[in-house]
Amino acid sequence: MKIIAHIHNGFETKFGVPRQGGIVNEVKSKIVFEKEYRVPEAFRGLESFSHIWVLWKFDEAERDEFSPTVRPPRLGGNKRVGVFATRSPFRPNPIGLSVLKIEKLELDTPDGPVLTVLGADMKNGTPIYDIKPYLPEFDSIPEASEGFAEKTRNHKIDVIFPDEIATGLLEKDVETIKAILSHDPKPSYIHNERVYGMAFDGKEIKFTYTDDGITVLEVTSR
Amino acid sequence: MKIIAHIHNGFETKFGVPRQGGIVNEVKSKIVFEKEYRVPEAFRGLESFSHIWVLWKFDEAERDEFSPTVRPPRLGGNKRVGVFATRSPFRPNPIGLSVLKIEKLELDTPDGPVLTVLGADMKNGTPIYDIKPYLPEFDSIPEASEGFAEKTRNHKIDVIFPDEIATGLLEKDVETIKAILSHDPKPSYIHNERVYGMAFDGKEIKFTYTDDGITVLEVTSR
Repeated sequence: MKIIAHIHNGFETKFGVPRQGGIVNEVKSKIVFEKEYRVPEAFRGLESFSHIWVLWKFDEAERDEFSPTVRPPRLGGNKRVGVFATRSPFRPNPIGLSVLKIEKLELDTPDGPVLTVLGADMKNGTPIYDIKPYLPEFDSIPEASEGFAEKTRNHKIDVIFPDEIATGLLEKDVETIKAILSHDPKPSYIHNERVYGMAFDGKEIKFTYTDDGITVLEVTSR
Repeated sequence: MKIIAHIHNGFETKFGVPRQGGIVNEVKSKIVFEKEYRVPEAFRGLESFSHIWVLWKFDEAERDEFSPTVRPPRLGGNKRVGVFATRSPFRPNPIGLSVLKIEKLELDTPDGPVLTVLGADMKNGTPIYDIKPYLPEFDSIPEASEGFAEKTRNHKIDVIFPDEIATGLLEKDVETIKAILSHDPKPSYIHNERVYGMAFDGKEIKFTYTDDGITVLEVTSR
């Protein structure tokens, strides 16, 4: 398996990375290809698609032994389901599958062709194995059943971002941080009052959970 | 990369295999797992989903050198597009991606858990790398643009299956063969009057192209 590219974005740690692709479209990422694949012709026609599949490496999920079940955080962390019934990273081959929106394809940058995408659920530096066009005729099945995933969808929480903390930040950065936090970075079954920290885009964001959701406590440059 | 399973179906040769997953749902396949993964718990919860992603190996597509463009048969065979703008098998990592419909999951067979699926676009014996549930909330994007693929969709041709040839065959086998052929196994830009042969499910099917589409000439047991 060859690594063809890496993704570059603000997710400096795994904590805070969205659980699936396409959830937080406010997050922009750049896909930069390895030298061998910096060939503009290899991307010819891609500009006519709006979305791509990205096959990528679950970089921190390698295990020596096959574990047949996993405990998805969204099922409360105590219910075991089969690994093949989940998108968990802990699977026989550590390959992630995400559909991302293409924002821009630049063919002629100092790093060769660069693809800007929205909605990544990968940490900065994640290796990429393949890029394929999303073909709605085959790939889009709205009537497919969601299985047990249905119970966990639309889990979003309110985010309070006090004005005095937002002051000095760009409006779009505030919106991006709010969008990321609204998907509840910690496992949703854990309830405590500790202060969490998330590194994103050169900033350290401190927040805590209250009865009303998440409250941002501090944003500092790293 | 570990091979976790193989697919078993009637496609004995590459010729005749549908061009994408989900096109010919009349075709049934069985996914049989390698010994290490014959663990019923690994499939717990999968019965609540209707569709799966299958990541599989393009077994006959390995090349030594990276070729940045391909000529999709459906674009006439003479127009080159970038490999990352296609689902062509000739890509840096030979991984295919198909969404298939689950017909049945049997946990307790002599070969361990066996998954029966509809709509495979893989030859008999194709190695499989991963099975993931299809999550319509994230994976289904009906409004995604089809790019240049739009021009080639719905290419189907009429199939004439004369009664005297259908006699002695099961009705469902006739329907399956008709469904496969209606997707035009040969590159659609080639026009000639030769007799084509396709091996499927222990049968040899001979057919030819006329102005009206495909006419089945003979079906024999192999």
